Order: sequence, then C-alpha cells, then structure tokens
Amino acid sequence: MIRVGILGFGGLGRAGAQVLASKAEMQLVAIADRGSFAYNPQGLDYSNFEPIPSENSIQQLLSYDIEGFFLALPNLPNNFMAEVAEQFIRSGWRGVLVDALKRTSAMTQILALQDRLAAAGITYMTGCGATPGLLTAAAAIAAQSFAEVHQVEITFGVGIANWTAYRATVREDIAHMPGYDVESAKAMTDAEVEALLDRTNGILTLENMEHADDLMLERLGICDRSRVKVGGVVDTRNPKKPLSTTMKLTGRTFEGKISSHCFTLGDETSMAANVCGTAFGYLKAGKQMHDRGLYGVFTAAEVMPKFVR
Amino acid sequence: MIRVGILGFGGLGRAGAQVLASKAEMQLVAIADRGSFAYNPQGLDYSNFEPIPSENSIQQLLSYDIEGFFLALPNLPNNFMAEVAEQFIRSGWRGVLVDALKRTSAMTQILALQDRLAAAGITYMTGCGATPGLLTAAAAIAAQSFAEVHQVEITFGVGIANWTAYRATVREDIAHMPGYDVESAKAMTDAEVEALLDRTNGILTLENMEHADDLMLERLGICDRSRVKVGGVVDTRNPKKPLSTTMKLTGRTFEGKISSHCFTLGDETSMAANVCGTAFGYLKAGKQMHDRGLYGVFTAAEVMPKFVR
Repeated sequence: MIRVGILGFGGLGRAGAQVLASKAEMQLVAIADRGSFAYNPQGLDYSNFEPIPSENSIQQLLSYDIEGFFLALPNLPNNFMAEVAEQFIRSGWRGVLVDALKRTSAMTQILALQDRLAAAGITYMTGCGATPGLLTAAAAIAAQSFAEVHQVEITFGVGIANWTAYRATVREDIAHMPGYDVESAKAMTDAEVEALLDRTNGILTLENMEHADDLMLERLGICDRSRVKVGGVVDTRNPKKPLSTTMKLTGRTFEGKISSHCFTLGDETSMAANVCGTAFGYLKAGKQMHDRGLYGVFTAAEVMPKFVR
Repeated sequence: MIRVGILGFGGLGRAGAQVLASKAEMQLVAIADRGSFAYNPQGLDYSNFEPIPSENSIQQLLSYDIEGFFLALPNLPNNFMAEVAEQFIRSGWRGVLVDALKRTSAMTQILALQDRLAAAGITYMTGCGATPGLLTAAAAIAAQSFAEVHQVEITFGVGIANWTAYRATVREDIAHMPGYDVESAKAMTDAEVEALLDRTNGILTLENMEHADDLMLERLGICDRSRVKVGGVVDTRNPKKPLSTTMKLTGRTFEGKISSHCFTLGDETSMAANVCGTAFGYLKAGKQMHDRGLYGVFTAAEVMPKFVR
C-alpha cells in the first residue's frame, strides 16, 4: 500500500482523490491546498475531511510519512511547479513526485532540477497526465515501427459540464489562445472568463499549443520538437467530448513506406480518468524506481506506467 | 554504438539485419543460423557475408564482444527459445537478449529462468515483437484510464507476398489452427504447407490464439489472462494486409463509464517493421537497464522501448 498525498484540491485534485478511493494498492493520506491541509495516516475520506488552516500547507505535510505526491496544481504562474519541486528538495523529503503539467517551458524548468532532485533522493515523474502523458507514451510506442518519424499530431476533445469545476485548467487553456498568455489568463476574473465563454458558446478551440509532448519526444530522439503538433477543442458546457482524442504518428518504415499509427481514446473516458489514472500509474512506476535507488527526473515517454489495482 | 548479433537468419532475422543497416546507434556484428555463423567486429554487411560452417554456431559467437542479441529464431519446438537462453546462461556471457516469441507456454519457460538469468548478469527482454510486443505495450498504456479492464482484443492482419520467405513463422501460425499443434506444424513438409494454403486460397484465419499477451497483462495486474483475445488473418499471397491490425482495450472508468481505447497500426507498416523495430527498441532499453545492473527477465509490457536512431 503506497501512502499518497495530493497537492491541489481543485477539479483535478478532487478527481484524483476519487480515483484513489477505489484502489487497493494506494491510500490517500494527505491533501493540501493553498491555505489548508488535511492528514490522516489511516486514510482520508476525500468526501468528508476537516481541512486545517495553514500558511504553509505543503511544508506541513513534509514531516509526515507520505511516499508519493500527485501535484494536481495549476501551473500558473509558469514556474509554480518548479517552485514546489524546490520546496520538496529543500525540505529533505524523499519519495516520488508526479506532475501532469502541460507547457514545454514549465517542463524545461523541471528538467533543469535533474541534478538537485537526484541528489535529494526524489524520483520526479513529469508530464504524466493525458497529454502530455498517456498520449506521449503511446507516441513513443508507435514510433517503434518507423525508421524516421515525420509528424506527431495530438488532437484532444474535452467536455466538461461546467467550467467552474475546472477553474485553473480552463484558465490554462485560455492562456493558449491568441491574444492571451499565462499571466493575462491567470489574472482573469471569473466574470471575465464567463464573458469570453459566452462569446464562444462555451467552446475553446486551441491550435499549435505549447505542449511538452514536443520536448519529451525530442529528448528521446524520436523527432524534432517542431514535428509535434498539439491542439484540441474544449466544450465547457457539455460533458460530451466535442471530438475524439487521438494521437497520430506518421513516419517512414525501413522499407520506405510512409504510414501512420493511431491511438484513439474512448469518447466515454473523461479528462479526469485519462489524467488521474495515468498520473497514479506513473506514481506506482516511480515508487518501484525509487525503491531501486533511481532518482532524478523522468518523463512519461521514457517510463512504462504500472497498472494500479 | 551497441554491437548487436542476430540469431536466426530466416525472414525475421534478415529483416532485422536490414533494419539495423540504417541505424547510427546499433551495429550488426554477428549472425548465426543453424550450422553457420558470421562475425565482423567492424560491422557485417547483411547482404554480402561469408558464413562459416559450425556445428555449434551460437556457442561460437559467445566469446566475441557482442552486447546484445536479437533472438530471431523460430520457436519450434516450443522450448527452443528457453534452451537457447540456457545456453547463454551456461556460457558466462553477459548482455542483453531480446525475443519476439508468441506463445504463452514458451514465455512461461522464459519467465521460469528469471533467477538464473539475473544471477548470470543477463537482461532478457521477452515478447518484444508486434504481438506480443508493440500492441501489448500499447494495452498497458491504454489500461491507465480504467479502474477495471474487461477485455483486450488484438486483431492482426499480415500480408506477405510469398510464404516461403517466412517458412518458420507460417508454420508457427498453422500450429494455432484447429487440428494442428506445434509438433505437427513443425513436421509439415513445404509441399504439405503449400497444399494447405491452396485449400485456403493462401489465407490463414486464426482465432483465440495462445499468445503471451495474456500472460504479460495478467502479470501486471491489468486483467485476468482469460480476458485477452488474440486473432488475425494472414494472407500468404499478397503483401497487402487483409485487415488493419488493432488493439482494443475495454474497461470501466472510476466514474463508472464503459469505454474502449483503440490503437491501430498503419496498413503500410509490414510485420517486419512492426516486429524488428520494436525488438531493437527493447534491445536499447535493455542495454540501458543492463548498464545500471538490472538483470533478469522483463516483458515488453513493463518496460518502455527506446527509439533507436
């Protein structure tokens, strides 16, 4: 039984807690959000716990016996995840950290912590959501058939009934749209987000997104980052996906044939299922690596996630 | 540059040699087949080499400086791969072995060698072809979205212009057909295979095959082996695939939704591209593990293959 903490208790953190509730191999023992935390070594009931106010909620948890954390934090500002990682490094805590960050620039900051994370005895799994994550790992598998990879196209469809359940994620999405950046999206009030969504009928269409899938595949020598394209459509007013989520990898085989492998996610699988399931699969893989003394940063495309029962 | 040997020089071994010819990170230095071998530390030209007759061709290679072998051997009889592995163990050779075997019973024998392979300093990657292999790894990724996996269906289409280029593989396929087994298929003369193919218009239809994908996914706790179904259609007279090769994984998400993820291979990718590319991807992964002192048996579903440039 792996004792797990979740940092961040917005839409993603809550979904993560719900996913853990049915797992025999993992137990949720801690939750921290801005300004409060909760800890129970016997297991936390995610639907009913008493948060304890704290000015440094993450720091509070680091003295407890927690083997791994899912960093279900918004990555706004763009250096927030790296700052949290630094907090873990400074604390002397040892264990597994898993993030589901999206932006290439945010992952670059995590990768720069490689030596310090390794020295601290931390196994840090980065980019372990759906994209990057599940779909990037599928691309690394798909690449095997090809002598040369020409293009990786990731197209996602996300449907959520109500944007307010995913306030941070929706702002991260808006930050990818023309005329916005991470700072301006983070600064938007709820009313401003509402007004934008009213203008688009609740639909966010995202093209050529800055997504770390590009960096992850380039690091592995699969293709240059310019050959990786990520885009998608988010419907913030309908839980049904506006289109199927796919990863299509095109390349040339050793026999000179051009072809594409395609990985398609079932339309009934939610963002929460695809992100959180994957994150805990990498947490389990990271725990096995940590137990063998493998520390430092690893991306979702270079490690096989393990199935968590 | 990883110095690689290929054992077996039938259709698969030849394709493997051709795949290696374009790789900067691997060099083919040795080939062995029943009764002969070739070795050149500067690199072997697979299209033009002088085989040296030898009664114990594998043993000959074990004194040379070869870091990994692709075991492109027919697995007929069913214990042949395990016997070859034992030969490596007894020899004192240390390095990486990769097989692309298919049958559950053959992999069971390889897994039973875990302790002896580990003690010998050998990193053995098993089931690293297309299925099991590429598609099993894709199933392990796809499983991440689900709380419970109900079914994994692998359906393959293979088209080859002429069965005589893959005599051993075609016999292994026939062994899966009703009324045949491994022994009787291996004992068939070429004329008998021809006669069978004449009756079926060159088509072999295979259902509920004994394929190690089941064992590999069960070992990882993804699902019971009875929930894994493998079947396919082989056209031995047409290089065009009779149907697309797919892996479909169906399960229940933590939210109670039933859905299926699907991984589809491009029709233009040949069996040779999908098997050999994958095998060398696992050889590279195995080499990195071997360098870190990780020995023993690993299946394709538990390790991420690395892209070989």
